[in-house]
Amino acid sequence: MVDDRIPVGVLGATGTVGRKLVELLTGHPWFRLAEVCGSSSSSGEILARGWNSAGGESASVAPESLRLKDPDSPWESPILFSALPASAAREHEIRLVECGHILVSNASVHRMRPDVPLIIPEINSHHLEIITRQAWEGSLITNPNCAVSALALALAPLHEVFGVKQVVTTSFQAISGAGTPGPPAGSLLDNVLPLIRGEEEKFTGEPQKILGRIEDGVISSADFPVSASCTRVSVSDGHLLSVSVALAGEPSPESVTKVMAGYRGSCASLNLPSTPTKPLEVMPGEDRPQPRLDRNRGDGMTATVGRIRQCEVLDVKFFVLVHNLVRGAAGAALLNAELCQAEGLVVTAR
Amino acid sequence: MVDDRIPVGVLGATGTVGRKLVELLTGHPWFRLAEVCGSSSSSGEILARGWNSAGGESASVAPESLRLKDPDSPWESPILFSALPASAAREHEIRLVECGHILVSNASVHRMRPDVPLIIPEINSHHLEIITRQAWEGSLITNPNCAVSALALALAPLHEVFGVKQVVTTSFQAISGAGTPGPPAGSLLDNVLPLIRGEEEKFTGEPQKILGRIEDGVISSADFPVSASCTRVSVSDGHLLSVSVALAGEPSPESVTKVMAGYRGSCASLNLPSTPTKPLEVMPGEDRPQPRLDRNRGDGMTATVGRIRQCEVLDVKFFVLVHNLVRGAAGAALLNAELCQAEGLVVTAR
Amino acid sequence: MVDDRIPVGVLGATGTVGRKLVELLTGHPWFRLAEVCGSSSSSGEILARGWNSAGGESASVAPESLRLKDPDSPWESPILFSALPASAAREHEIRLVECGHILVSNASVHRMRPDVPLIIPEINSHHLEIITRQAWEGSLITNPNCAVSALALALAPLHEVFGVKQVVTTSFQAISGAGTPGPPAGSLLDNVLPLIRGEEEKFTGEPQKILGRIEDGVISSADFPVSASCTRVSVSDGHLLSVSVALAGEPSPESVTKVMAGYRGSCASLNLPSTPTKPLEVMPGEDRPQPRLDRNRGDGMTATVGRIRQCEVLDVKFFVLVHNLVRGAAGAALLNAELCQAEGLVVTAR
Amino acid sequence: MVDDRIPVGVLGATGTVGRKLVELLTGHPWFRLAEVCGSSSSSGEILARGWNSAGGESASVAPESLRLKDPDSPWESPILFSALPASAAREHEIRLVECGHILVSNASVHRMRPDVPLIIPEINSHHLEIITRQAWEGSLITNPNCAVSALALALAPLHEVFGVKQVVTTSFQAISGAGTPGPPAGSLLDNVLPLIRGEEEKFTGEPQKILGRIEDGVISSADFPVSASCTRVSVSDGHLLSVSVALAGEPSPESVTKVMAGYRGSCASLNLPSTPTKPLEVMPGEDRPQPRLDRNRGDGMTATVGRIRQCEVLDVKFFVLVHNLVRGAAGAALLNAELCQAEGLVVTAR
Repeated sequence: MVDDRIPVGVLGATGTVGRKLVELLTGHPWFRLAEVCGSSSSSGEILARGWNSAGGESASVAPESLRLKDPDSPWESPILFSALPASAAREHEIRLVECGHILVSNASVHRMRPDVPLIIPEINSHHLEIITRQAWEGSLITNPNCAVSALALALAPLHEVFGVKQVVTTSFQAISGAGTPGPPAGSLLDNVLPLIRGEEEKFTGEPQKILGRIEDGVISSADFPVSASCTRVSVSDGHLLSVSVALAGEPSPESVTKVMAGYRGSCASLNLPSTPTKPLEVMPGEDRPQPRLDRNRGDGMTATVGRIRQCEVLDVKFFVLVHNLVRGAAGAALLNAELCQAEGLVVTAR
Repeated sequence: MVDDRIPVGVLGATGTVGRKLVELLTGHPWFRLAEVCGSSSSSGEILARGWNSAGGESASVAPESLRLKDPDSPWESPILFSALPASAAREHEIRLVECGHILVSNASVHRMRPDVPLIIPEINSHHLEIITRQAWEGSLITNPNCAVSALALALAPLHEVFGVKQVVTTSFQAISGAGTPGPPAGSLLDNVLPLIRGEEEKFTGEPQKILGRIEDGVISSADFPVSASCTRVSVSDGHLLSVSVALAGEPSPESVTKVMAGYRGSCASLNLPSTPTKPLEVMPGEDRPQPRLDRNRGDGMTATVGRIRQCEVLDVKFFVLVHNLVRGAAGAALLNAELCQAEGLVVTAR
Repeated sequence: MVDDRIPVGVLGATGTVGRKLVELLTGHPWFRLAEVCGSSSSSGEILARGWNSAGGESASVAPESLRLKDPDSPWESPILFSALPASAAREHEIRLVECGHILVSNASVHRMRPDVPLIIPEINSHHLEIITRQAWEGSLITNPNCAVSALALALAPLHEVFGVKQVVTTSFQAISGAGTPGPPAGSLLDNVLPLIRGEEEKFTGEPQKILGRIEDGVISSADFPVSASCTRVSVSDGHLLSVSVALAGEPSPESVTKVMAGYRGSCASLNLPSTPTKPLEVMPGEDRPQPRLDRNRGDGMTATVGRIRQCEVLDVKFFVLVHNLVRGAAGAALLNAELCQAEGLVVTAR
Repeated sequence: MVDDRIPVGVLGATGTVGRKLVELLTGHPWFRLAEVCGSSSSSGEILARGWNSAGGESASVAPESLRLKDPDSPWESPILFSALPASAAREHEIRLVECGHILVSNASVHRMRPDVPLIIPEINSHHLEIITRQAWEGSLITNPNCAVSALALALAPLHEVFGVKQVVTTSFQAISGAGTPGPPAGSLLDNVLPLIRGEEEKFTGEPQKILGRIEDGVISSADFPVSASCTRVSVSDGHLLSVSVALAGEPSPESVTKVMAGYRGSCASLNLPSTPTKPLEVMPGEDRPQPRLDRNRGDGMTATVGRIRQCEVLDVKFFVLVHNLVRGAAGAALLNAELCQAEGLVVTAR
């Protein structure tokens, strides 16, 4: 039987996000994992044993035949995923887009370029149109930082209905968000690390761009300030954020709850395979969301919200959680690739 | 040799705070632990083996002869410490003050009474004067909630020099703050609990009372709002707070750092045995304070501050840490008892 | 559409094992969860919110209509699962078997009765025949202790092929094995607990009974001694055992590996729904099995083995791991119920 | 005032063991820390901030003026401590002994040389005499592997009184034993690692050498086999071992307890500053020793034992714990240096 799914490649497939991409692509209805590259240092185990032993918690995640290729060799897949670290992304991404590939990147280096859309399909799939401003033969689409994705999903319905004015947030970020190898065990046991280098800065541009409008073919970022304090905690997966927000019209916690609970996002009609039933779910319990209990809701693509209540300083406060490797990284990139395909961007040789 | 130290008693000596009090009283220069009561359910091990085996991490913490007494039997010590849970505190505390004891309580039930001082000696030792408004034969003095004590120590110099206008804080609270037995291991492993029942409410009254002024013999609370989001994390001891604060005059992070670093508090001249060299220490590293590295500074009595920087929404943000069982509970009560003694409140039979 | 699956009930459904049973029964091809009872103290959340919110990590685990019944009221299901604690099991189990139910119990109280089979279907499904010795209208079948199940699965092929002579084992047991609420978080953070009350004793009878032969309709236990040292570690699920074993014929690690890798057990032909492809899987990596990476192999029903190597004192040593709540408890009971059904023991009203 | 303490140097002072040595040398009555070298990669923080900020949990651990020197430059101190990793130890240690230094090494590379004593002073201080067989101008003395030190301290009184015949042990080793940076946080959270490369092999030579006799000026190792299974668990400090032992005469657990409780070791009369009151302490509780509660007994120099009971396969089993960085490494080296000084080996220029 012919496998006529679209071949895709993964750059940085041996890192934490790359391995999750390989896992999510297994059995994907539209895409077939055809090519990968990865760092030889972190890929020792994978090269030695094949993907399936290395997958750890996941059984059987990739074709046994998959072998690491040289990133500089030609790639054949129309869609490439980049899970590269910043320096490698800077080196390779533009070159591959120039070669005509659709590059769906999780890397941060090009997220804030005015001609590169920063997309969460449920929120701003219409930003995809600005790729017409890109001068390359291919296209470059990015998804936001993992912790920003939690905030953006929580703010999206509030910005749409009320208008966000100010945000103060403190994050509790999981170990897997630090990549491979990540922080030493001795630094996180019985401890909290009150610094994630380069993280807080991302909250001053990414949420605003995602929630921005298109004006004359250009993204005009929303202009609310966000103050973020980012920490690393002893949690394997799942970024939790404590969020206080000032909103136009000073709505009550009840109004905010209703708006959040009713949010479905703008891309439901596209029926993308990785879209969850709810991009945002308001948890019923008093003490939710919790990383271990809620990170896998909607197969890791649903952000969960809880404890929506009055803020004594701004208007409303709440907690929001996302699975940082799925909705916050690999799943986000995959959803963006599905969006590109659904919008007819992918030209295949067939 | 005669031991002429002042005899003291501990109510609730078998709980987490009570055991820490017993430990801190061992070898105290002014006080001698003479009497204790505790719950028979949690004290099984202590009753069976004596304090010294039960002390866990501490070697030899109490006289071998110490046995639990009935809380309703007469107490002989002029100073009593209460580490009782709320319901027991409500039942016993006033009765003991009526009997003439100086009751130094860590319990929350009477903290907000207008005639009961809520004291951190470095900040508001002068509030002690309002005990003249108490109608009892003895006196009742309280110390704040453990997480509030971190915030109050950080805000005190800022309120004195600039004036605090607004505070938004998120806490990372240690397991020991939940008492005995505390949350089950299964609930905190690989997790964060985004709710501590009854905790956030304490931030709307206690910091304001501590930083209030005395007007006509009455405490006039400061009137800035505090929005707190409190969580429990997998840390044994040490409450960390992420704090954003709006200050009159909008001082720079540098000014705030200077003011915090220079803070010594108002009771240094009393030479209380448990006063640390610095009630507040600004940590030099970029990634401090951290619970495991910094909770024991100043023998657990020094709050540590770090990452003082611009806040994009309010004026300045930072992290502050206290050892919740020492500066936040047992050490706080002990310091208050020392203050009472230094101020001549303690009348002994000698 | 008529649901003609066999109705089953769960006693102790609100405990750790009971909740896992409810989860595993969701969508079961043969059984339909019809009745539950549970302790009202631990079931507060479940009663308040329904099973599905309480399920935590599992989405939608039970019919919304399921409500806790009184354990003393009549039960209608032919098969009942007991996840009761020892005292409640002692009170209720025999009474229910006398009423004609097939009672599949995870409780320890009756495991060592000579007329009660202690079954792991892959190892000793033929022991089921001794229920003919039971004088009750119904039947009582038990599964072993969670840590014993790991050892028994590892020893079964070795006992069959070589003959086990002596075993020395040290266990690393997960928090969930201690039930609800389990040990306090403060006792396990940065710690190992070197005692699990009543656990080591189970290794001196259960493995020997499981690996025993039927002689004249009576189980004759194997007679090798097992020395177990049991500890609790900071792991959510998955019991790991370090095992040294003396075997007849002193086989090499390579022979032992081959025998373990080839083991399929004796019930494969029954096609029980919960039987994994392999009851025992030899892991290829040098540093496996690991609780977090391997506990869910075979949907939690596969025990994993690794590091099979020469023992300097006995003959061979290795590590073995099981998911204590699945293969070690709820899944074990479910598999035993499936065995009863496959063997024609279940008489239904249909 | 003249500081006439003996100047000492530390090689590898920026690693985990080296930093602990620097801490233990602070305020030492006999030795003054005069020189250090360390890896520039791991010493960034120390170089940037000085020892005292880098010390983490320890306040003020070293002279502010201390700066890293080149290990190849001349060393002036008569006593040098080596906390070097294996490769660096192989490169530097012999050269420094040839230069006339007394080198007290924690590294494993030379431990098993027949002319190098492997010493735990309480057990085998008389082995020091074999340094007369060393051809160098200086002397080289080593201490055992951290986990071996726990076993050796537990076995010493048993070997002396009964004679050890066989040992089976499983270890639970702390993160700090893996050095800097140690295993990634993601690998140990909710997990146990059942492999420590190169560790189990050390149990087949080191305990036997330590408990060996001197015959004709040569160490004759004891000849009992030890089977070790070594694991890494989520504990910061403190190696716990589950031990089963066969003893000549098959003594009862009570006899074994009495012998262990009475053990004081053979170097008490030397009054070495780092000797604890008891090298081995039998804990009274049923559930001890525990890493977090007991690792600091005797300032980290006392090994604690508990749960001494009948073994179903060998004779007796128990748990033993040591602080791996103190008694198992830095404190062990320091005690060995003190032994050298007490035995008159140290020749100073004074």
